[in-house]
Amino acid sequence: MPANLKPRVRKDPPPASPWEARRRPRHEHALKRDAVILAAARAFQARGYHNTSLDDLAASLKVTKPTLYLYVPNKEAILFECFRAGLAQIQASLDDSERAGGPARERLFAFIRGYAEAIVGDFGWCMLRAEDQHLGAAMSRRIKLLKAGIDRRMRALIEAGVADGSIRRCDTRMTAFALAGALNWMGHWYREDATLKPRDIAERFIDVFNHGLMGRQ
Amino acid sequence: MPANLKPRVRKDPPPASPWEARRRPRHEHALKRDAVILAAARAFQARGYHNTSLDDLAASLKVTKPTLYLYVPNKEAILFECFRAGLAQIQASLDDSERAGGPARERLFAFIRGYAEAIVGDFGWCMLRAEDQHLGAAMSRRIKLLKAGIDRRMRALIEAGVADGSIRRCDTRMTAFALAGALNWMGHWYREDATLKPRDIAERFIDVFNHGLMGRQ
Repeated sequence: MPANLKPRVRKDPPPASPWEARRRPRHEHALKRDAVILAAARAFQARGYHNTSLDDLAASLKVTKPTLYLYVPNKEAILFECFRAGLAQIQASLDDSERAGGPARERLFAFIRGYAEAIVGDFGWCMLRAEDQHLGAAMSRRIKLLKAGIDRRMRALIEAGVADGSIRRCDTRMTAFALAGALNWMGHWYREDATLKPRDIAERFIDVFNHGLMGRQ
Repeated sequence: MPANLKPRVRKDPPPASPWEARRRPRHEHALKRDAVILAAARAFQARGYHNTSLDDLAASLKVTKPTLYLYVPNKEAILFECFRAGLAQIQASLDDSERAGGPARERLFAFIRGYAEAIVGDFGWCMLRAEDQHLGAAMSRRIKLLKAGIDRRMRALIEAGVADGSIRRCDTRMTAFALAGALNWMGHWYREDATLKPRDIAERFIDVFNHGLMGRQ
């Protein structure tokens, strides 16, 4: 489960150290903190942020509320970490697709596959909330900057496709918005209608976006 | 302004009556009720449902809170009316496109144009909230049914296009979800980035969905 949080960028990672015994408590702490954030992400999605108290969260983890405070300062900080984890997954999938090489259209489609997986994951719902009214101004600004970075990279991928000829000339900004919308929207309908795997949905979306809808006549 | 609420279906509309003086108060009441709902829609979008009190709303309309209760029983009922007004606009645009005739692909594109206008309107944000955690179970169920009806009609339009040959064979369900997602997502980015009119955005989306992204190579 903590693997879900892996792509999260951590400032100041503990350096490799021969004092294994001394390093362990920090590692344990990070694992438990990840577990708190994951449990919160599931609760926020299932019941909503306002309807989830730190008491509920502590109960679901079978710890006391004071124990929670060893890992997170408050509910808002947990929400922020959920956003960061969700965005980090999308960023990781952009990194992968950029490293893959080949025509930009293929890289874009690889990204779409990764994005679809991330959206149905535990932190995917955070992509549906562009300006979260539960985050204070400073945290909200940071999340917006991260999201804007993803938009920019997605658009750059489409522009690269137009440049290398693999993507037809189009409004790259509107195309990026259309793609992001189609993918993010999965977060709304997927849980109730999970007849297809995210990979299958990605292939259907790729089919529509690649070939368009125009019929014979 | 009350024109925004026009498509809303009203049960038991006042019949044409020669007693103009007697009809007037009912008409006035409906106009004022519409004004309450429109003011609430704007406040909910700007500050969020939780951050808007009935006191705020009364103050913005320059009336007292008891006056508000002449028009609406509580805040949840106002939210429900906002949803209903937003969904009615989408339904009206489906009605228009169905009446238009011609190949189903053209009717679908006409619908996309109407949808884009509705999304950036005062009630458009309600399309971004599929399962609103602020609505009680009964009201939530009714909204879900209305939304499901829209999904169904949209899919039927795509199926009609496949049948009449104007739309390429595709997964009609996933295509409807991709389109709805692209359009609904406008509600997130449009206000901050309104460099294009909704009509122009609709044309860009239509271009992408019609012709696809595949380039020369």
